[in-house]
Amino acid sequence: MSSGIEALDILAEQFARLPGIGRKSAQRLALSLLEYSDEDIAAFTAAIGDAKAKIHRCPICENLTDREVCPICANPARDKSVICVVEDARAVMAFERVRSFSGVYHVLHGLISPMSGITPDTLTLRELLLRLQDETVKEVIVATGATTEGEATAMYIARLLSPLGIKVTRLAHGIPYGGELEYADEITLSRALEGRRDF
Amino acid sequence: MSSGIEALDILAEQFARLPGIGRKSAQRLALSLLEYSDEDIAAFTAAIGDAKAKIHRCPICENLTDREVCPICANPARDKSVICVVEDARAVMAFERVRSFSGVYHVLHGLISPMSGITPDTLTLRELLLRLQDETVKEVIVATGATTEGEATAMYIARLLSPLGIKVTRLAHGIPYGGELEYADEITLSRALEGRRDF
Repeated sequence: MSSGIEALDILAEQFARLPGIGRKSAQRLALSLLEYSDEDIAAFTAAIGDAKAKIHRCPICENLTDREVCPICANPARDKSVICVVEDARAVMAFERVRSFSGVYHVLHGLISPMSGITPDTLTLRELLLRLQDETVKEVIVATGATTEGEATAMYIARLLSPLGIKVTRLAHGIPYGGELEYADEITLSRALEGRRDF
Repeated sequence: MSSGIEALDILAEQFARLPGIGRKSAQRLALSLLEYSDEDIAAFTAAIGDAKAKIHRCPICENLTDREVCPICANPARDKSVICVVEDARAVMAFERVRSFSGVYHVLHGLISPMSGITPDTLTLRELLLRLQDETVKEVIVATGATTEGEATAMYIARLLSPLGIKVTRLAHGIPYGGELEYADEITLSRALEGRRDF
């Protein structure tokens, strides 16, 4: 959808690359930025640069953080013997909003999806296995979503961890099929956590 | 919706300021940018800065352009005697996609909306009146949307231009193409009836 204004089309293309933004929305977003003051434009681009520069993965759980170690791993009150394995940082945020989980996380940064070229070795499974060498871990809760990729990844992890003799559980079926964790309501999410079962 | 990561929350707030972006989408967009390479981040921020620096209003029609005068005003094939008055640059793009209008435009950059503090003097009506001092203009088509603000603005412009003796028209109102009568609302239907024409 060309506007006939090259700089506007380039900006709209940038917005259209973002998830969930169609071409018409992208053009609307690009046009709305043109109404910003120079200060607001500077604040927007600085926020992008800052986020990219300051945020990295926690060396323990692989969650995103702007600290050396993320606040959850650094919190002595969190139970280090229970690791909740999730797809991404958004899933961590969803669990943290519920406030019913006191363990720690491990962020996979993806789900196994051969169609999209996401194989087990592109996830943070090596890092998870390294964490499990420490004897403190008693339980791994595989909390991927109830999608095809989520369940395939959960099964893969269950098989991967079975020789280690650690209890591996998964969320109860309370999450509707096809539902993404981020959009689950708090009761559904905390019930799914409570009702977790052995593989 | 705090993520516990300050730089991420600041970026998500920036996205949430944009039109049509809710807080959850904003966080999703902010997170997606963290997966960009440094080059992609640089391309995104450069596109924002470039669009802001290069795009300004055409001194004739007030439409957005990156040239001195916009390509439509600069085109000798366009009929300068017919001016189509529209709300914003997106309306110009919509008309240009149809390719059935050969005149020129005048972009108001808003619609009268006392609730939002948009009064007639914040629109480009002064610039429109200046253009009409030139005797070449024979017709002004007021092409604002069929919303409360669009119609109030159209009525205001019609009254403003009536002393000038220039023909002022507005877009036809009626049943949209493909629209079934059964689903037309009462106002649309009664306008379609009022505006009936001979075959």
